[in-house]
Amino acid sequence: MPSPAVAFAAENHPRFLEELKELLRIPSISTLPEHAADCRKTAEKLAAELKRIGMEHVRLIETKGHPLVYADWLHAAGKPTVLMYGHYDVQPADPLDEWHTPPFEPTERNGNLYARGAVDDKGQMYMHVKALESLLAADGKLPLNVRVLLEGEEEVGGEGIAAYVATKPADLKADFALISDTELFAPGLPTLCVGLRGMIYTELEVRGAKTDLHSGMYGGAAPNPFVALAQIIAGLKDREGKILIPGFYDNVEAPSAEELAAWKSLPFDEEHYRETEVGSKQLVGEAGYSVLERTWARPTLEVHGMPGGFIGAGAKTVIPAKATAKISMRLVPNMTPAKAFAQYKAFVEEIAPAGVDVSVRLIHQGDPCLIPVDNPYIQAATKALHAVWGKDTVFIRSGGSIPIVGDLDRHLGLPSVMMGFGLPDDNLHAPNEKFNLENFRLGIESVIGFLEEAGK
Amino acid sequence: MPSPAVAFAAENHPRFLEELKELLRIPSISTLPEHAADCRKTAEKLAAELKRIGMEHVRLIETKGHPLVYADWLHAAGKPTVLMYGHYDVQPADPLDEWHTPPFEPTERNGNLYARGAVDDKGQMYMHVKALESLLAADGKLPLNVRVLLEGEEEVGGEGIAAYVATKPADLKADFALISDTELFAPGLPTLCVGLRGMIYTELEVRGAKTDLHSGMYGGAAPNPFVALAQIIAGLKDREGKILIPGFYDNVEAPSAEELAAWKSLPFDEEHYRETEVGSKQLVGEAGYSVLERTWARPTLEVHGMPGGFIGAGAKTVIPAKATAKISMRLVPNMTPAKAFAQYKAFVEEIAPAGVDVSVRLIHQGDPCLIPVDNPYIQAATKALHAVWGKDTVFIRSGGSIPIVGDLDRHLGLPSVMMGFGLPDDNLHAPNEKFNLENFRLGIESVIGFLEEAGK
Repeated sequence: MPSPAVAFAAENHPRFLEELKELLRIPSISTLPEHAADCRKTAEKLAAELKRIGMEHVRLIETKGHPLVYADWLHAAGKPTVLMYGHYDVQPADPLDEWHTPPFEPTERNGNLYARGAVDDKGQMYMHVKALESLLAADGKLPLNVRVLLEGEEEVGGEGIAAYVATKPADLKADFALISDTELFAPGLPTLCVGLRGMIYTELEVRGAKTDLHSGMYGGAAPNPFVALAQIIAGLKDREGKILIPGFYDNVEAPSAEELAAWKSLPFDEEHYRETEVGSKQLVGEAGYSVLERTWARPTLEVHGMPGGFIGAGAKTVIPAKATAKISMRLVPNMTPAKAFAQYKAFVEEIAPAGVDVSVRLIHQGDPCLIPVDNPYIQAATKALHAVWGKDTVFIRSGGSIPIVGDLDRHLGLPSVMMGFGLPDDNLHAPNEKFNLENFRLGIESVIGFLEEAGK
Repeated sequence: MPSPAVAFAAENHPRFLEELKELLRIPSISTLPEHAADCRKTAEKLAAELKRIGMEHVRLIETKGHPLVYADWLHAAGKPTVLMYGHYDVQPADPLDEWHTPPFEPTERNGNLYARGAVDDKGQMYMHVKALESLLAADGKLPLNVRVLLEGEEEVGGEGIAAYVATKPADLKADFALISDTELFAPGLPTLCVGLRGMIYTELEVRGAKTDLHSGMYGGAAPNPFVALAQIIAGLKDREGKILIPGFYDNVEAPSAEELAAWKSLPFDEEHYRETEVGSKQLVGEAGYSVLERTWARPTLEVHGMPGGFIGAGAKTVIPAKATAKISMRLVPNMTPAKAFAQYKAFVEEIAPAGVDVSVRLIHQGDPCLIPVDNPYIQAATKALHAVWGKDTVFIRSGGSIPIVGDLDRHLGLPSVMMGFGLPDDNLHAPNEKFNLENFRLGIESVIGFLEEAGK
């Protein structure tokens, strides 16, 4: 028999979904300055909703960038306190022409809700809000003490929340954190994520001539920044995916034999993954490691874009004065962003070809993390998930980065429960991002169950 | 004592300059479809002016792209016929923020006229028109038979004029061609260009995954098209500038010992060139060749831009599904575009890394050429130039490509006199393109003198 809160959630689900769509219509793209007002509007809307459902001390906390949203309810004497985290900002939506329906007009199709931010992370964050509403409406109270902290800069490195957490404010005092920004390993398979990669995101700028030059007149004498970038990038990573930066792998800690064995028993087929998720003619990466090891437990280096020169239609015969590569690296336990960046920068400067000047900028960074699983909150989570999904929980890692997880551990000593309900084909950061509608519904139910269980 | 035509030109020079500015205000950027109407407007304006000064049979000749402008005056019985060529299209103006004054608002500053197309080629083409006006106005006739043919696709490969010339139409029958689209080797030094590099301009597209992917989730397993492009580009050219495509140098014909000796006596200092023209910390290119050899007589490979992925401000952690590199190669006698493209395409396909698909497109091409200097028109040109500039003419090559020169030779048997008045620091194809005002004036005078001399 469902709890009253679960019954309330079921009854009100159509409204919950409409409210989520309203949130998704606001293009809160944190990296684009022209969307700063949209970020603030989203924060204000969430604050108003938290107030409406009965949360207290609701307020925006200003940062150097987009504001944090805070709320609490602290009347469960003797019970633990959970810090519920989510982020309301989203990735840019380009390339726009690859979306089947517009990114900021949420559209239901085949049991999914399509929109930028549907699953990352507005939809998952909103599960928390609706779980809290259901508990407060059905029971008149919460089963444990709750603090809510939402940020608007997760997609750009989360500097604001990191700075705030580092000051160890009293209103973040809690026993554990709940984060829903990850995915189920497979449809219907309850999953907790216990490891994340860290990252450094950099811009590598190469300057050659003092001005753009005609490639006919000067080709053969003037340095070409794109050719130099190509030579540097080809020098950073070999054709087998091994990063060539000296010392880069020194601190890499391999997963335990037990963890590796658990990964091997996961329902995962590399060929199916290649065909359905990636769609390339073959997968790439370091020899001797499985796909799960390569994406969860090995550092990687990627190039995201190379601004500069002529990118219009047709031909322009220019040797540009400068060009840039946006390059990021994912880091694994026990690497540190500071050391990785220093190694990268020194090596880039060493291998830069003659004739050009290089400069390397660190845009943002995050620590890798590994969560211990032997705590009562992880146990409560697996129990609650079993009740909703009827299956044992699998423990996985994610190749992505959620810098706040490391910050909460380091500064506040909080273990995080990463209970996410995305699916592997949800197109995060890509066109046609979606959230499975059934997972949105069961996610709310799971969060309600988890909070009830954790408050016992 | 100046000829009546030269006197007319001197008297009317202020008007000539204002007319040129009017032409420069029209952004006739041939590669951008949104400027097609501007190209046509420029062609119509030139046709109207040719008619006004007394040229006959003035008309636009339609092509698949922008129209040609034709005019003639054929009443000098027993005299040779010159085909006067120029182009009215210009390069794109980006990066706009590096222009000191707007590219399509011609501005006089320090004895120069700054505008996109000032020297390449509207200003030089208009010298021809004003020389013809001066001769017709002062003498009531021309000293030889004249055909004028102007194109609007030189900056995008000149397909239209190439197709037209290949049909060998009767209205292109002539004895030689006059082209002013090159430069003086040094200020005040009369110069004829007798060699041009050819080119192939290509787009190399690399496709990896079927859609954009999150670099956290998929980094380590999904192929990255930018990394693949970097590996391919680094494989096409070594760090010393040597092109690594097998067989690429097979047909390269070295300049004669006599020509090399003449180049050595030119007033050229590599360190001065590096500092004032290129401005990079050092020059690059093949060891064992001088800068003039590297830019005039050696093939080169350049990358102009790499569209794809994320190029906005800040960070987006995407592994793009595809990325492209705009890559061109300059060719020298006796290379052919067809063979060079086939070698390049085969090698790219051979060295492409695992996991990606590559496709190579040829955007446009042009043959290299070398003009014989032992004809009466070159002799007439050096005589006329000596009269205006008081110095012996130097013979140089150019690293750039003017495909029409090869076409006129191959299809119509016309030797070209490449008499240009640009300067090495005119910023062709770059921000702050300029034309020296004194060179515009002396250029008109030189063309008048040359036509008078050639008609003797």
